Amino acid sequence: MVDLRKVTAALVIIGNEVLSGRTRDANLQYLGENLNALGIRLMEVRVIPDVEDTIVDAVNTLRARFDYVFTTGGIGPTHDDITSASIAKAFGVEVVRDPEAERLVRSNYATPEDVTTARLKMADVPAGSALLNNPVSKSPGFRVENVYVLPGVPRIMQAMFECFRHELLGGEPFKSREITAFVPEGEIGGPLGEIQERFPDADVGSYPFVREGRFGAALVVRHPEQTVVDAAAEAIHDMIRNLGAEPVEE
Amino acid sequence: MVDLRKVTAALVIIGNEVLSGRTRDANLQYLGENLNALGIRLMEVRVIPDVEDTIVDAVNTLRARFDYVFTTGGIGPTHDDITSASIAKAFGVEVVRDPEAERLVRSNYATPEDVTTARLKMADVPAGSALLNNPVSKSPGFRVENVYVLPGVPRIMQAMFECFRHELLGGEPFKSREITAFVPEGEIGGPLGEIQERFPDADVGSYPFVREGRFGAALVVRHPEQTVVDAAAEAIHDMIRNLGAEPVEE
Repeated sequence: MVDLRKVTAALVIIGNEVLSGRTRDANLQYLGENLNALGIRLMEVRVIPDVEDTIVDAVNTLRARFDYVFTTGGIGPTHDDITSASIAKAFGVEVVRDPEAERLVRSNYATPEDVTTARLKMADVPAGSALLNNPVSKSPGFRVENVYVLPGVPRIMQAMFECFRHELLGGEPFKSREITAFVPEGEIGGPLGEIQERFPDADVGSYPFVREGRFGAALVVRHPEQTVVDAAAEAIHDMIRNLGAEPVEE
Repeated sequence: MVDLRKVTAALVIIGNEVLSGRTRDANLQYLGENLNALGIRLMEVRVIPDVEDTIVDAVNTLRARFDYVFTTGGIGPTHDDITSASIAKAFGVEVVRDPEAERLVRSNYATPEDVTTARLKMADVPAGSALLNNPVSKSPGFRVENVYVLPGVPRIMQAMFECFRHELLGGEPFKSREITAFVPEGEIGGPLGEIQERFPDADVGSYPFVREGRFGAALVVRHPEQTVVDAAAEAIHDMIRNLGAEPVEE
C-alpha cells in the first residue's frame, strides 16, 4: 500500500450514544466522501465518549498530526455537551460568550423567554474562535486554528460543512474506478498483488462481499491521474476475465 | 458525566474504504450494542488506514488502556490485508502458518487447486495466537492476549463474535430507558442538568433530532440498577410534562 496522502484530515466523533451502539454515526461517511472530493484524505477517525480529558487528548494529538481536524457532537445546550469547554482546554484558552454567536442564538427564537440559559450556552466558544455559519438552526459551530467544531446532527453538520467547504485547501482530487466481480478474493489475491506492483503509486484496494450467497469483491483503483487509473482498471478487467468471470463497472 | 466504566473495550476499524466514505461501517454499532449487553463498555473506536505503523501504534496504545481490543478488517487474502503481520509486529512475535488454520482454510475448498497461495495467507497468524471459529467461511480470526482480530465483512464478523461472546468477561450489564419528546434541547437543558445532579451516578444523555421539521430529543438514562433508572426516568417524564409536551416511551 502506497501512502498517497498530501493534504490530510482527522475526525473526532464525540458521543456516548455512538459508542453504545444506540446511534449509528452518519458523519464519518459524509465527511470521508466530501473531503475526498476536495482532495483531502481522511487519515484517522476516533470515536470517544463525552469525557473532557479524552477529548483534549484526541484533539491535541490529531491537530498536531494532520492538516485539518473536524469534531462532531457535544455542542448543544444540555449538560452532556462539553465539547466547547474541552476544545478551549485543548488550546489553553478561556471559554467566552461570543456576541455574534449570542445574536445568532437569540435570532432563532421568537421571544426573549425562549432564550434559556441552556440555549445561551451555545454562544459560549473558545476565545479566538471563528464562527461557522449554521443555516439550519442558527447556533454556530466554530473553528480554532485547524480544528473545526461541528454539531452531531447530520443534517445540521452537513449544512454547516457546505458553508465552509470552499475555504478548505485540498490536495489533488483523486480519480477512481471501481470494478465488481463475483470472484472470491482468494482467487484475486495473487494477480491483484501483481497489478499493485505494476502500478506502485496507485491505491489498489479489494473489498470482499457476500451477496445472494455468493462471494465477490469490489476492486477499487485510486490515483490523481486518470490515465493511471484507467490503465490499472483495464488490467483488473483482464484479470477478472482470465479468472473466468465477468467484470461489472457502473 | 460520571465515568461508569468497569470492564472496557476499544475497537480498531482497519480500512481505507471506510475512511474514504466508500463503505459505511456497520461493525461499530454491532459491537457497541453487543458488548454493552454483556456489560462491557466500548470506550474508544479508531478508524485507521491499511498502514502497518498506524495499526501497530493504535493496537499497542489501546491494549494497554482497555480490557479488550477488537480489530476488524484486513485479514483476507489480498495484498492490502496486512492486519495479521501488523498485529504480530505489535506483539513483537513472528507470523507463523498455523496448521489448524491451514486445515480450516483448505476445508473450505473443493479441490487443492482452489487453495491458492493468496488463500493460504489466511492461515498465517502471529505466533501464540488462539484461533477464533468462523462458521461462515472457515478461515479463522485469532486472539493474541486481549486483542481479538476479526474480519471486516459484517456477516462473518458477527458470526465469529457469536462464537466467542460467552468467553468475554463482562461487567454489570446496564439497564436503560429512553424517553422521546418533541421538546427542543434548549428547553430541556436546564431541568435535565438538575436531574443529572439528583442522580449523579446515572448516565443521563440527551440526543437531539429533527423529525418532520420539528426539533426533539431522545433522553436516555443508564445505570446498573433498575430502580435508579426508573426513578430518573420518572423524573424525566415529569420534566417533559412540565414543559407542556408529551413523553413517549416504547
